[in-house]
Amino acid sequence: MNELLEFGRKILESQPFSNLIGAELTSFEKGSAEIVLPVKDELKQQHGFVHGGVLSYLADNCLTYAGGSVLGDCVTSEYKINYVRPAIGHTIIARSTVISSGKRQAVCECKVYAVSDKSEILVAVSQGTINKIE
Amino acid sequence: MNELLEFGRKILESQPFSNLIGAELTSFEKGSAEIVLPVKDELKQQHGFVHGGVLSYLADNCLTYAGGSVLGDCVTSEYKINYVRPAIGHTIIARSTVISSGKRQAVCECKVYAVSDKSEILVAVSQGTINKIE
Amino acid sequence: MNELLEFGRKILESQPFSNLIGAELTSFEKGSAEIVLPVKDELKQQHGFVHGGVLSYLADNCLTYAGGSVLGDCVTSEYKINYVRPAIGHTIIARSTVISSGKRQAVCECKVYAVSDKSEILVAVSQGTINKIE
Amino acid sequence: MNELLEFGRKILESQPFSNLIGAELTSFEKGSAEIVLPVKDELKQQHGFVHGGVLSYLADNCLTYAGGSVLGDCVTSEYKINYVRPAIGHTIIARSTVISSGKRQAVCECKVYAVSDKSEILVAVSQGTINKIE
Repeated sequence: MNELLEFGRKILESQPFSNLIGAELTSFEKGSAEIVLPVKDELKQQHGFVHGGVLSYLADNCLTYAGGSVLGDCVTSEYKINYVRPAIGHTIIARSTVISSGKRQAVCECKVYAVSDKSEILVAVSQGTINKIE
Repeated sequence: MNELLEFGRKILESQPFSNLIGAELTSFEKGSAEIVLPVKDELKQQHGFVHGGVLSYLADNCLTYAGGSVLGDCVTSEYKINYVRPAIGHTIIARSTVISSGKRQAVCECKVYAVSDKSEILVAVSQGTINKIE
Repeated sequence: MNELLEFGRKILESQPFSNLIGAELTSFEKGSAEIVLPVKDELKQQHGFVHGGVLSYLADNCLTYAGGSVLGDCVTSEYKINYVRPAIGHTIIARSTVISSGKRQAVCECKVYAVSDKSEILVAVSQGTINKIE
Repeated sequence: MNELLEFGRKILESQPFSNLIGAELTSFEKGSAEIVLPVKDELKQQHGFVHGGVLSYLADNCLTYAGGSVLGDCVTSEYKINYVRPAIGHTIIARSTVISSGKRQAVCECKVYAVSDKSEILVAVSQGTINKIE
């Protein structure tokens, strides 16, 4: 495992809420990140789909990692998310990349997929601003 | 308790993720909604603040309730959120209102506050689109 | 006319694009701004409504003024806009307020109205982030 | 020229505001669109950069074209835009693609570039929702 990924995992493990949800950082490189989440019943809403709040959590966190890969210590300043399909599957994967970055700010995008036995389907798309902490 | 609020609470209680987080619908009227969340350690990030994903969950859900109060059965199509301050306190409150609505769509806004013993501070602001399910 | 408004008008007058469109700053105080635009045919789209790009221009500029009223020299970092109704009328008015501000950043909201002889109707709603230039 | 592009150009030419700005549709295929804008002084702000409102107009319009390529007659419901660099150059190009689409709605993204003699630089990034008109 590369050092950046190892460092990123320690941060995720130090977030009680990320442990509650069960998210795992599976890739963390300069300019991109991937977070994987095994689906549990307690992450669902009333129709059996993964709750939008879980998808937002994943997008938000994954955007922050992408931004952090080029900025260092940082926070999500803002983001927008479009839910495009119900999230059904055994696993949710969020993948983010840096679109543009400067000294203090990075603009990143994140796509969220629901993985079932047969397919990987796009369920949400996000774009946001990550600010370096100074 | 009015009927709309009672109905809204049953929906929230039927969402496993909302139960996991511990959110409670405290007001639900035509054009507005309020969700209250007691802060637990497991909802925090690594610096002890309430995790952004929790604030997003609250904003998203509260936007949906506001939209649902005028549209009926609905989903959040998209929203954007700005985090404006670290969320520190014993309780988080989300309050949403309908800004504009038509037959199929409502545009709503939601403000999220962190409540401590001495104050109620704005921590996040959100605007989103709620779509009627047809 | 107060000094802030006078100062703000000079900036608007120094923007060739704002002159092309014909926008006028009608209020500029600490925490808020108002821009008024007389509707001309050349600002319309193919159905006779004021073009969405004109509404976006107004929201964007008005957000920047609100932010600038508390930050000083600044730029719009990002914003989102919801178009909620066709813009029909003789005048368009954008009104923005600061929702939250710090040393470097302000989060502002802007509502855009179409004014006809009989009414003033909300046509767009916007939320954005204004960054201080340093 | 393909039929879709010819059709798209007629629509753009029927928008008085697009003529005022001087935008030209240069590509329009199922799932994507490109709009090119020669920079004139009257499109600038006070520092000599192309005005943010012009970039927003381009992103908004280009998003609508991408959505329209899969939905037919449509409008932009909402979008968000991040300005990432000052827009300096002789030409601005907006390129949009459909990220996801259903019967009534498409989520699209658009990147806006400033072209100078030596380079093409990303100046804005946008994501939005396009609604079919029914």
